[in-house]
Order: sequence, then structure tokens, then C-alpha cells
Amino acid sequence: MSTQRDTIEVMEVAPRDGFQSIAEPLPTADKVAIIQGLIDAGCQRLEFGAFVSPKAVPQMADMGEIAAHFAPRRDLRLCVLVPNLKGAEAARRHGLHDLGYVYSASQTHNQRNVRRSREASIDGLRELVTFMQDAPEFRLRVNVATSFDCPFDGAIDLATLREAVTPIWDIVGDAEVALCDTTGRAHPHQVRAAFEAMMAECPHPATRWAFHGHDTFGMGVANALFAHQAGVRVFDSSAAGLGGCPFAPGATGNTATEDLLFAFHEAGIDSGIDLLRLLDVADRIAELPGGVTASHLRMVPRRRVV
Amino acid sequence: MSTQRDTIEVMEVAPRDGFQSIAEPLPTADKVAIIQGLIDAGCQRLEFGAFVSPKAVPQMADMGEIAAHFAPRRDLRLCVLVPNLKGAEAARRHGLHDLGYVYSASQTHNQRNVRRSREASIDGLRELVTFMQDAPEFRLRVNVATSFDCPFDGAIDLATLREAVTPIWDIVGDAEVALCDTTGRAHPHQVRAAFEAMMAECPHPATRWAFHGHDTFGMGVANALFAHQAGVRVFDSSAAGLGGCPFAPGATGNTATEDLLFAFHEAGIDSGIDLLRLLDVADRIAELPGGVTASHLRMVPRRRVV
Repeated sequence: MSTQRDTIEVMEVAPRDGFQSIAEPLPTADKVAIIQGLIDAGCQRLEFGAFVSPKAVPQMADMGEIAAHFAPRRDLRLCVLVPNLKGAEAARRHGLHDLGYVYSASQTHNQRNVRRSREASIDGLRELVTFMQDAPEFRLRVNVATSFDCPFDGAIDLATLREAVTPIWDIVGDAEVALCDTTGRAHPHQVRAAFEAMMAECPHPATRWAFHGHDTFGMGVANALFAHQAGVRVFDSSAAGLGGCPFAPGATGNTATEDLLFAFHEAGIDSGIDLLRLLDVADRIAELPGGVTASHLRMVPRRRVV
Repeated sequence: MSTQRDTIEVMEVAPRDGFQSIAEPLPTADKVAIIQGLIDAGCQRLEFGAFVSPKAVPQMADMGEIAAHFAPRRDLRLCVLVPNLKGAEAARRHGLHDLGYVYSASQTHNQRNVRRSREASIDGLRELVTFMQDAPEFRLRVNVATSFDCPFDGAIDLATLREAVTPIWDIVGDAEVALCDTTGRAHPHQVRAAFEAMMAECPHPATRWAFHGHDTFGMGVANALFAHQAGVRVFDSSAAGLGGCPFAPGATGNTATEDLLFAFHEAGIDSGIDLLRLLDVADRIAELPGGVTASHLRMVPRRRVV
């Protein structure tokens, strides 16, 4: 009935956020096959992996090998998380130029997640941007974790979010900034209000805004749609909902890409991804040993999907 | 962040729509205890049961006994589904005056569900309203099943929905009309557009609009919030998401009351229901043998809920 001539960009995060939630390292060949399946389904942006210490994150230890398969594909945007300059240099060596950087709006979460203060993390962002000034082929996504809620400190108010987000504008200029609902506890009106406030205050009109959501509290799709109402056009999600949840055994993780696509595609808002083909990959992901998945669309008969 | 000074009414449907999804009759005492728990949690409107043939619906055979426990509570709205005049007369004998009547926007679904044409069902509504004219203590909810999607015919367009809804206005005047997403396949923009269209066309300004949703496709909360954006203030949901799904084994049924409450309460839109107490009842419902439930809120630690 209602159709909006509009498109969204989906960042498929199963290859990084998803795989990383599985403790036991997966065979590289399986990862490559799944990534290839996602690309074949039409995913053009992927959170592709991370250049981090293999001791800290064993699941990402084969990053170089995976990069070798896909880095030549210049038509894709393969985003790798880098915690520091060393990671950025590794990305360059492997021919990857979409970088992701993450810190938390919550001081407590930042300390526990990356073992330094939020200010130290923002200094790290400054270093990364300086590095990128001599390398114009790079693009940067800044992920602000716990933008709405922190598992330790509870609700994040607008003042705290502002303290976390405004340095990005000074350091990066026109960046892509993701407000991340790390815990899945954000609620739709909060998500819309936060984006509206940050967008209104941002001095760089070309800043791109992204929403990264989890479905732990059942708000995943609604939060994304309310972010869309605020003007967000870039969404992170994970095929099959792979992701798990750090504090609630059995609870769901990332919003499932297939659920998100259904909500948008049915309204005539296209993503360029083929939902049925994406569902086939989601089925394969759901079979990975050790993975926690949660999807609504996967449970209904395929003939009812499109 | 965003707060709206606003309230909603929730019709808790576990006692009818929920229990009826369980084939094996539940002990009457268990049903009474659960209904009492829902009332103690603050539920003031319940889809309380149905006066139907016990042969057709064995789960509702103890309706009279359950009614005897609660009919004296004049502070509550206990809605009973009645398929015809005989059901309405049974409701009156048991001291219940909130009646629910259902037919489908889809001809095929109406035929399979109540074994007559939509027009014959609308004639039945006319008879019921004539009966109620001499009994001003009665109130009527009209449920339009498959308002958005039919498991047999697929998407319901606005013209078909209009054919189903407009007779209500001629027959009832100011009714409460629920557009029901029977299959859970409606999507948020469709729900909002359908309500906006019906509201704009309705000649009775005091008509109350309700949304009955399922979470089968993961759209349950988002659909309710988009209905709210259209102006809907009455929502059906089932504690623990009890309800099952007629065509997809393993898929979820009614939108869980606790998920719905979280989405609204967090935005400052109150329902009068105590979410933590409702969750305790939802836990009890989830233990019922033979029930299919689906809830997000139940899976997160209670200390994170409020």
C-alpha cells in the first residue's frame, strides 16, 4: 500500500560481528563460502573482519587468507575493524580500504571492551585519521558502541551520547557514524530521538548516519524503522541473526538481515539484496556449530516470504 | 529521551486466542489462576473466552465455570467471542457484556474459518447489533481477520479491506473495530497506511480502532508502533506470545504482551499494566503443556527489564 521511492544500504556483519561470537575458530573455507554466498545474494557492504591480535580474537586469525580471496573485488565495500594504526597498516597491506573504528559512549563499557578510557580511544581515532590523510583511498566508519544503553551503567542519556559523538565531527569531518545499540535494549522512540538530536547538531551536512541494532529485547526491526524515520539510510544486520548476546544466554543477537529486509522491501524500500538468496545463506549460517542465531523469516515457509 | 504523554489500552488475549491454540483442554483451575494473575498484573481488558460449540472448540467448554469466577468484577472488561445470537445469549446469562465478533476481510479465509461467506457473516453482525439494541449494557468489538494478508489469497489490498470494513459503520455506528494481522505477514508501512485510510474514510468520529498483531514474521512490535503512529490506541497481545501459528510449525504466534509493553512503556506511553508482574504470569503460561510461546523480554534478565 504505502510505498516510498527510497533505498537503504545494508552492512552485513555476519563475517565479523557474527563469526566472532563463535568461540571455536571456523574453517577458513566455510567462512569464504559464506562470504561468497552473501556477495552472490547482493550484499555489497560487509563487516568483513578485523585486524586484531589473533591471541585476543582467535576467530579472526585467518583474516589475511580471507582478505586474499576478496580484496581484488573493487566493486564491494569490505569493512575491517581496526583497533589502532597497526590494524590499519595490516588492512593496507591486504588491499582493504574500508576501515571501522569502535569506541563506546559509556566509559565503563569502553574500559572493559578496549581497556582504555573513552578519551584515549578518541585519541586513537585522531591517529587513524592522520594516517588516512596521506592515503585517500581509505574510507572510515566510526561505530559508537552503547549509544543508547550500557550493560554496566544502564541508559545512556543524550548528554553522554553527545560527549561521545561530537569529537568525531572535529576529527573526521564528514564521516560515517554508526550509533550502535550494543545490548538491544534501546527502544524505538529513543533511537529516533537520539538520531534526530545528533543530526540536528552535526555541523557537517554530508555526514552519513548508520544504525547498528540487536534484537535481544525484540525491538530490532522497530528500532531500525524508527532510525529510518529520522533519516538514517545505512543499517547493520547479520544474516540469520548470528551474534549471540554477551549477558543473556539464549537471547538473540544482531537483528537478522532477513527480518530487516522484509520490513523495508515490503514497503518498497530496496536494498539491492535478494531476500530469498540471502535466506539460503542464513540457513547455512544457522548450521554453523557454536553459533547463536535468531531469525523470524527463516521460520516461515519460503513461498510466503516474497 | 522522547516521551509522549499518552496511554494505550491492551487487550490481553492469552485466555482465549492463547488457550485456544492448545489442543488438549487445560485444567479449569490453571486457567482461572492465570487469568487472576493477569488481572493482578493490571490487565483490565481481556479476551476472556468464547461461547462457542464445545464440540468445535473443546478448550472453551468450561467457559461458564470460568465466567462464574470473574463476571462479578464490573471494573474489568471481559470480552467473549460470540459467533452468533446463541453465543450472545449465553454471554448474557453468564453476566458478560463485552462481546467480540469476528469475520475475515478475505472471502476464502472467512469460508474456511466460519464456513460461510463474508456477506453472511456481516448479516450475522446485523443480527447481533439488533439484539444489542434492547440491551444497552453490551459493548461490541468487531474483529476483521486477515485485514492485511490471507494465508490462502495473499496480500489484502485496500479495496478488499474497505469492502469488509465499511459495512460495520452502517450497521454499528460507533464501534470498536480491530484490523487483525492474522498471519503476522503485515508490514509496518502497510499497517499504518491501512489504518490511515480507514480512519480518513470512517464517517463516525468516535469509532475506536484496535490493532491485533502476530510476530510470525518478526514485525509484531513494529506493526503496533506504526498503528500507533496512525492514531490507534488499543492493542491486542498475548502474554508470553502464546498463540502458535496455523501454517508454520515452530513459528511464533501473537505478539507477546511483554514485548509490546516494553516498546510503549519505555517511551512513556503507559498501559496501566505492571511489566514485571506480567512477566511472572508469562513464565507460568510458558510452562503450559502443548503451548507455543515466543517472547523476547522473557529471555533477558529481569533486572534489565525496567
